Amino acid sequence: MRNFKLTLEYDGTDFFGFQKQKDRRTVQEELEKVFRRVFARPVKISAASGRTDRGVHAEGQVVNVKVATEIPVRNLHRAFNSYLPKDVAVLRVEEVSRGFHARFNVKRKTYRYVVWNAKAPSPLLRRASYHFPHALDIGLMRKASRFLVGKRDFRSFQTKAGGKDSVRTIYRLSIEKEGGKVIFLIEGDGFLYNMARSIVGTLLAVGAGRISVKEFGRIFRKKNRSHKGPTAPSNGLTLFRVTY
Amino acid sequence: MRNFKLTLEYDGTDFFGFQKQKDRRTVQEELEKVFRRVFARPVKISAASGRTDRGVHAEGQVVNVKVATEIPVRNLHRAFNSYLPKDVAVLRVEEVSRGFHARFNVKRKTYRYVVWNAKAPSPLLRRASYHFPHALDIGLMRKASRFLVGKRDFRSFQTKAGGKDSVRTIYRLSIEKEGGKVIFLIEGDGFLYNMARSIVGTLLAVGAGRISVKEFGRIFRKKNRSHKGPTAPSNGLTLFRVTY
Repeated sequence: MRNFKLTLEYDGTDFFGFQKQKDRRTVQEELEKVFRRVFARPVKISAASGRTDRGVHAEGQVVNVKVATEIPVRNLHRAFNSYLPKDVAVLRVEEVSRGFHARFNVKRKTYRYVVWNAKAPSPLLRRASYHFPHALDIGLMRKASRFLVGKRDFRSFQTKAGGKDSVRTIYRLSIEKEGGKVIFLIEGDGFLYNMARSIVGTLLAVGAGRISVKEFGRIFRKKNRSHKGPTAPSNGLTLFRVTY
Repeated sequence: MRNFKLTLEYDGTDFFGFQKQKDRRTVQEELEKVFRRVFARPVKISAASGRTDRGVHAEGQVVNVKVATEIPVRNLHRAFNSYLPKDVAVLRVEEVSRGFHARFNVKRKTYRYVVWNAKAPSPLLRRASYHFPHALDIGLMRKASRFLVGKRDFRSFQTKAGGKDSVRTIYRLSIEKEGGKVIFLIEGDGFLYNMARSIVGTLLAVGAGRISVKEFGRIFRKKNRSHKGPTAPSNGLTLFRVTY
């Protein structure tokens, strides 16, 4: 039995998220189809972020597969990419120890959120960015973002009643302008349901002057989802990196 | 009668090029549909590059429309973008003098060609780049590209027998690496049929070591299309800017 760690990129536009669902096109289903073909048997996969939503992209999703095979790593890599549809690719294949588990061993995840901040929409960026036409004050957004960095209770930023534990650690939250784009990078030890999109949506409300920085702090301290700002749409979000 | 200059962006993936054709989805057709709706009458448009191919994108295509209307420019801009499909957008609307013609008045055009130069394909870049997995020597490509800058006869780089005049001036041809991307910018006073893609395809053959710089110069001097390198695919090409 060998264990392979695969790093994946996908364009989430035409998928109903990662996780397998009946009668829906999902990334997991496309992967399992190809693995069944390459390994000539059904194989189960574990993913770092099995629950990435419909429309969310990845440049660094990680899965692992355990399988008895003699095929060299290089050939596996080539075979995967030649059979996968064009909106999924395997960036790297590594053989890892049998103990490695793509979900349980995650230390950090980094999400990137891209906002296209211009009056006119951008057809070329539309699949992987959110068009936000209102002027944004980056300084205000950065100021508000400081509330979130550290070990915090993120209950105000989850869109579903989750488990009891809503404490997570955000190691980094950067907001950079790059031409007409505003790019958020959020690195944390874990993310509650819709947490990244809810953080971005609320920070955009601050940047557009709809919520003051003070009010943002109040929302955050209340730990109550009813005070939330809007959730930014999924097409701007990319699972950028998973650290083990 | 007023005359409007429109700057357009479009994702060419799902279009059969710019120019209207029977039973094919084209950019011109989508524009004319929207103009008919906004102006309540059919209007004719002229485009800087009316013949951009199937799959070619634009970030700076220019068209002009002459029409009798009282609608202010701002409202026109908003109306166009609210009716256009998501893969076309109007970036700017300017009212110009009646003599302005989007095609006849062109001074320079700049095309950008994006190559994704990595072993694995990139699903997120696939629509607007060409995946070229072989190692590229940028220095060699730059060296070969110097043959092309200036007023030259580009007969070797057209893929259709054109008119007698195959002399064009290339003002700039830059090749830059940006992460895994290799980006070509080609600025000229005009381009023969498929000239930009043919230049890129042949330069890639030089970069990959299939054609020497010397041989490249020979192909160029022969002015004979039978000596051509490959034509790079249309999805990497974007009409980047038109100068008047």
